[in-house]
Amino acid sequence: MNPSMKLPPDSQARPALAPGHELVGLGVAAIDTPALVVDLDAMERNLTRMAEFAKKHGMRWRPHAKLHKSAALARLQMQAGAVGVCVQKTAEAELLATGGVHNIYISNEVIAPAKLERVAALAQWLRGASGRLAIAVDSMQGVQRLATAMANLPETGTSIDVFVEIDVGQGRCGVAPGTPAVALAQEIDQHPALVFAGLQAYHGGAQHLRTALERREAIARAVAAVTQTRQQIEAAGIPVALVTGAGTGTFALEAASGIYGELQPGSFLFMDADYAQNERDPAQPQFEHALFVKTDVISTSAGHVVCDAGHKSHAIDSGLPRVHELHGGAALTYSNGGDEHGIIHATALGGRLPALGETLWLIPGHCDPTVNLHDRLIGVRGGLEHGTVERVIRVDARGALT
Amino acid sequence: MNPSMKLPPDSQARPALAPGHELVGLGVAAIDTPALVVDLDAMERNLTRMAEFAKKHGMRWRPHAKLHKSAALARLQMQAGAVGVCVQKTAEAELLATGGVHNIYISNEVIAPAKLERVAALAQWLRGASGRLAIAVDSMQGVQRLATAMANLPETGTSIDVFVEIDVGQGRCGVAPGTPAVALAQEIDQHPALVFAGLQAYHGGAQHLRTALERREAIARAVAAVTQTRQQIEAAGIPVALVTGAGTGTFALEAASGIYGELQPGSFLFMDADYAQNERDPAQPQFEHALFVKTDVISTSAGHVVCDAGHKSHAIDSGLPRVHELHGGAALTYSNGGDEHGIIHATALGGRLPALGETLWLIPGHCDPTVNLHDRLIGVRGGLEHGTVERVIRVDARGALT
Repeated sequence: MNPSMKLPPDSQARPALAPGHELVGLGVAAIDTPALVVDLDAMERNLTRMAEFAKKHGMRWRPHAKLHKSAALARLQMQAGAVGVCVQKTAEAELLATGGVHNIYISNEVIAPAKLERVAALAQWLRGASGRLAIAVDSMQGVQRLATAMANLPETGTSIDVFVEIDVGQGRCGVAPGTPAVALAQEIDQHPALVFAGLQAYHGGAQHLRTALERREAIARAVAAVTQTRQQIEAAGIPVALVTGAGTGTFALEAASGIYGELQPGSFLFMDADYAQNERDPAQPQFEHALFVKTDVISTSAGHVVCDAGHKSHAIDSGLPRVHELHGGAALTYSNGGDEHGIIHATALGGRLPALGETLWLIPGHCDPTVNLHDRLIGVRGGLEHGTVERVIRVDARGALT
Repeated sequence: MNPSMKLPPDSQARPALAPGHELVGLGVAAIDTPALVVDLDAMERNLTRMAEFAKKHGMRWRPHAKLHKSAALARLQMQAGAVGVCVQKTAEAELLATGGVHNIYISNEVIAPAKLERVAALAQWLRGASGRLAIAVDSMQGVQRLATAMANLPETGTSIDVFVEIDVGQGRCGVAPGTPAVALAQEIDQHPALVFAGLQAYHGGAQHLRTALERREAIARAVAAVTQTRQQIEAAGIPVALVTGAGTGTFALEAASGIYGELQPGSFLFMDADYAQNERDPAQPQFEHALFVKTDVISTSAGHVVCDAGHKSHAIDSGLPRVHELHGGAALTYSNGGDEHGIIHATALGGRLPALGETLWLIPGHCDPTVNLHDRLIGVRGGLEHGTVERVIRVDARGALT
């Protein structure tokens, strides 16, 4: 009940933050603020919609776990039909593997030799668990260092799937489409422990283009680059087994392309305020907001009130959170009040400012870095207003940056 | 050596992130990226400058621990002369208390009755440790609920210091100066377990005004409001023992005011890129950057390179990080590459783009929420270029939001 009554006698021992499991079975009112809350009904509907989409279009899907960093949610996604998950970081892969997720793709470049040793060791460990590790590369040095790390494993027989990342318009990682990708595929092909698995072709910039037309044009260019690159690699005698990519903003386009075989969206599970601003492509399922910051009003004045959630509670890289329409929130706006505070104003539509101690629910601008601020997600069944805490989901790889 | 070789057999058990203590004694090259690194020499010089300033001006200082959230650094500050620390959250107070910090001021409002029970319990616990807890209030209801929580403690004899927060220009929490503050002081005075300790008068907005003149004018208005309010409270027969406030941008002004008795700056210890953009007040000590993100280049192309630190490694609420001048970084710029990537360009000044695998050091835009992304700070002695890891500092209250 009272954490400060249980302070350990050893002042050097770090008390774990309360895991929150004592909330299970209680109503939402029992959730201390600020807290990150998942509407489990909405999340499961989003998951079902994605699974049905993939099944209908005959696509593999491998959701990006950089969103939730949770082994439990990764396993839930795999039970719903996902072939595995993507991660961005070696440490994320290690922690999800520990949590029972045995098909993992590090869809990012790893260059440091010490980190590649960890990648190789994880590939071996996953093999022992009848699982599989994959990774992306975009440089000759990256391929060669990976091959060295795999060759230095104490046991032989482990291999790793390697995707060549091409830049299909994002302007971040990836080699240029065409010849440079062929050279990397050929290099991968030289190393017995590396299996050339295909192309990583994710267009991050296209995900947040607001009109459906802009997104169609961007993905059409990506598809052209992928098609040309695949032809060149196969002309060099190397089969391209799979093209993988796509995010929540565009995946129906990649699915319709005929050349992508695997979809990597992550955000669909929780849907943030930023994605909700996209003009919807009718070919995509409609997803619901499922992730919320519960916050209480701690200070009031004539023109505004202050809530206890600032940007240590939610990321603001894609804009400030929206106030959920519950409890009159539709007529309220959130302004940045710093690390620990949010400033709430009533809009001209005549919103009533909430009273001291009242609860508001915020819809984060961007889910991924918001989840990364929290050690746990409080899963609620039956809605935010009258629901009950059903489970507490650990964010296993929170802060797993390396 | 190899974390993935030590995966626990129980897949449900969460492995702790490597605490990092194995780095002690090794050179900076051994620090895996991205990582948050403290230049201990620079940090200690900043601490000495602050301590000397406070001593010279006869001021109490109570640095804000929302910056570092570390019991070890809080104790270091108290060894240097600080009377205690400020925090913003009850959970921060609990975790720092557990870490041996026994004089804590929650410089923020707490309204939820369950949380006020924790505040009261912590006050009692700190009393047992010969320490002291203080808190801010800005509402009658807040005072009355706090009094109820204190009255409900199982043992009698515990009291808590209560500061009335007045809004001196920030437009966030706090009652208006003058009469509303008198009413709160009178109410506090009615409750035997509450000790009216003075005024909380922090002008957050003034800290980041760029010119010294703007900051002087803002703090002059704050000082006028404080002076008037103190006079009114004392005219009502209640002594105002202390006025507390000030941050890294303005504390020399509050120190010179003759009415503030305690300074609360936090950021001076690490100095972020944002504060460094302020025109310096000659009356303030000059502080150095002491907090850095170590990052490696993981992808290169003709026009840019990509490093492995994105906004899951550093907060961007006060702007993107700057590239440290080391290793030619002065001619490089950092652009946002998303959650896990940074995009580095050479400036027109003719900077050389770093090679694959090279290290860069970033100066975060805002230290407080950057530290909150990390479980530990790697303390380096002897500089970032040739230094050695001396200690690993735990961020005890990382994610302690409630």
